[in-house]
Amino acid sequence: MVRAAKHTSRDIRVANRFHVLRHILAAPAVSRQEIAAETALSFATVSNLIGELLALGLLVEVGFQDSGGGRPRGLVAVNPGGGFLIGIDTAETYVHVDLFDAALTVLATVEERLSGGERCPEQIVERLVSGVGTVMAQAGVAPDGVLGVGVSVPGQVDHEGGVSVFAPNWDWLDVPLRGMLRSRLPMPVHLDNPLRASAVAELWFGAGRGHDDLAVLTLGTGVGAGLALGGSLYRGVTNSAGEWGHTTLVLGGRPCRCGNRGCVETYVGAPGIMQHLREVAPDNPMLCPGDQTATIEALAAGLAAGDPVAVAVADVTAGYLAAAIADLVNLLNPEVVVLGSWVAAKLGQGLLARVRDRVAGHALRRPLDATQIVLGQASGDAVSLGAATFALERFLASIGAPLGGVVRPVRR
Amino acid sequence: MVRAAKHTSRDIRVANRFHVLRHILAAPAVSRQEIAAETALSFATVSNLIGELLALGLLVEVGFQDSGGGRPRGLVAVNPGGGFLIGIDTAETYVHVDLFDAALTVLATVEERLSGGERCPEQIVERLVSGVGTVMAQAGVAPDGVLGVGVSVPGQVDHEGGVSVFAPNWDWLDVPLRGMLRSRLPMPVHLDNPLRASAVAELWFGAGRGHDDLAVLTLGTGVGAGLALGGSLYRGVTNSAGEWGHTTLVLGGRPCRCGNRGCVETYVGAPGIMQHLREVAPDNPMLCPGDQTATIEALAAGLAAGDPVAVAVADVTAGYLAAAIADLVNLLNPEVVVLGSWVAAKLGQGLLARVRDRVAGHALRRPLDATQIVLGQASGDAVSLGAATFALERFLASIGAPLGGVVRPVRR
Repeated sequence: MVRAAKHTSRDIRVANRFHVLRHILAAPAVSRQEIAAETALSFATVSNLIGELLALGLLVEVGFQDSGGGRPRGLVAVNPGGGFLIGIDTAETYVHVDLFDAALTVLATVEERLSGGERCPEQIVERLVSGVGTVMAQAGVAPDGVLGVGVSVPGQVDHEGGVSVFAPNWDWLDVPLRGMLRSRLPMPVHLDNPLRASAVAELWFGAGRGHDDLAVLTLGTGVGAGLALGGSLYRGVTNSAGEWGHTTLVLGGRPCRCGNRGCVETYVGAPGIMQHLREVAPDNPMLCPGDQTATIEALAAGLAAGDPVAVAVADVTAGYLAAAIADLVNLLNPEVVVLGSWVAAKLGQGLLARVRDRVAGHALRRPLDATQIVLGQASGDAVSLGAATFALERFLASIGAPLGGVVRPVRR
Repeated sequence: MVRAAKHTSRDIRVANRFHVLRHILAAPAVSRQEIAAETALSFATVSNLIGELLALGLLVEVGFQDSGGGRPRGLVAVNPGGGFLIGIDTAETYVHVDLFDAALTVLATVEERLSGGERCPEQIVERLVSGVGTVMAQAGVAPDGVLGVGVSVPGQVDHEGGVSVFAPNWDWLDVPLRGMLRSRLPMPVHLDNPLRASAVAELWFGAGRGHDDLAVLTLGTGVGAGLALGGSLYRGVTNSAGEWGHTTLVLGGRPCRCGNRGCVETYVGAPGIMQHLREVAPDNPMLCPGDQTATIEALAAGLAAGDPVAVAVADVTAGYLAAAIADLVNLLNPEVVVLGSWVAAKLGQGLLARVRDRVAGHALRRPLDATQIVLGQASGDAVSLGAATFALERFLASIGAPLGGVVRPVRR
């Protein structure tokens, strides 16, 4: 779809700045001419945007390319030392913190498991602040070198206000998380949720590269789908698009924590998979009551070893997942469906192969023929990578902002 | 979402041309300054595009507006006589043909019912050609005054190739409909399907005006959802997005003509509603076997009169429809969900009120709070209006196209 003008010239400038940087991040070194060709922006616009990014120290000139007779073309690349970013993936069962350089390469990581009782906003904030401190110390980075911190938390998020609007697994309602973090962290904080963070990570750096329309499934304790449509993240009118986990698969089926029955999440989220195991083999030792991570890991090991109970549970899970993925194929006609988050990562190819076998039983043939179904390909933790990408986007948007916007000097 | 540049400058020029015309169509008379403000395009760009449309005869100057001290501002409006458009809504049960002026006001209409046996491509083409002849004769319009014909047919359509890829209710596979029509009609023909046509009609002229994200439901023999996301029609990677009728609502439920079971369509399409009636009251006289139109009309009359069987069938239908609409609310977080097509038009407020009562039992509260659920508001037949809009869009895209594109002189 071609989008007609609707936004201000400043919006478009910010979007183009980000678009150009994305192309440079994707290549080791690239000329202005190549970027102009790839983005369909004019050479003058590209030169201008690159000039800005060079002045900020986010890019460096890295040499020349022979242009076959004409003047050699200057090459630019991301300056890894041009600034640092922190991305945080907060889930119900763990907190994962990464520190990245400006090329979005991980320099330091810390991951800690959360106990089931750790769910108050104050406890989570404490974990986030301590994680940030740990990775900065590991990498020897000072606060003024950090361009921003991107924090992903489960549930519905007001990303502009920095508020966790609703996190049902924690019983959170309207928690002003960014405000709480601001008093503890001296750098800009951006809040979003794992659906959107993993969608952006896959779109920029993973299975979505080069594709316009993708659904990135989060298969964890909670279940959802980050949507990138027409080449951009799709948020919906109140930033809550993607609640695929709360679409009905079995009308009147299993009760869901959202109040509905028969939601996708109740059949393919970690607690739903544990329920399948309970139904297939109630006393099987793979079931670790109260420990989702251990149970899914035991199932993954069993699946790899051909254990019949693990195979049966994977088959049942894949049956539900295939029908729910077919819904996305039929409704959205995407190029790529990505199976992401920790449950997908642990069950891996064994789950993927079973899903692929079953999805044709539900999806329309022609859109399915146009859809790849793959495991997540963003390296490392896709959610923290996506959250750091949001922080970078926010930083780029702040350049030249009117008073009140965040403008930070960047070290060369 | 702000979309970064990705398309050529020609794509953007065509999109902006269309965007400007859309704003002029929405107002009786408007100044270049107002359009620039509404579209966020520069005054120079708007003036340039309006100059083009004036030269084509699609717009006329209609006077001046006082600008409060400055020079009076020239006002432009669509020139109704600047060209004519034909829109055709082909359904399983009827063919509806409208002839529009350039302001998309209906000048002539013909609608004929199709017998159950009329389903060969040749028979349908005959009906379309004769309908076009009838409306042109009614309005006294010659072929060279018609800028284009937009044809909507059910099922999956390759709109660029002009091929009906798959129409399951007719057993059509890869029917080159545009080619067949070309030899019979001397004007450009654009092919699309009712999901997309009604979405565009509601976005431009109906319940979607002023909104960016909407789902326009087609409730007829077949069921689907036209999606406008981020202010533009969303087609998906192979133009088949919107097959909401073939998402699973009851896993393992009623068999569907698509091969899946438990699809939304089997519970809320006209044949599905007839099935509810059969289950509620097998011998009720409202059931006219083999005649969907008569049955739905009888149910609508019964519902208006408070007939308990009609009320029970409406309640059952609304229960399924509410759960399936909640899926769209949760997944897409739209601003507006429009109940469109002939089943919705006939059952009207009685169905709408029942759906609204039930949807909160399935949808997440916060996205639902942001969603209006309404009946279709595009005047007349939304599908033929949308099809004519596509023909207009195609005509505007052809202006200044390279050789091989369609460039037609337009009468002033």
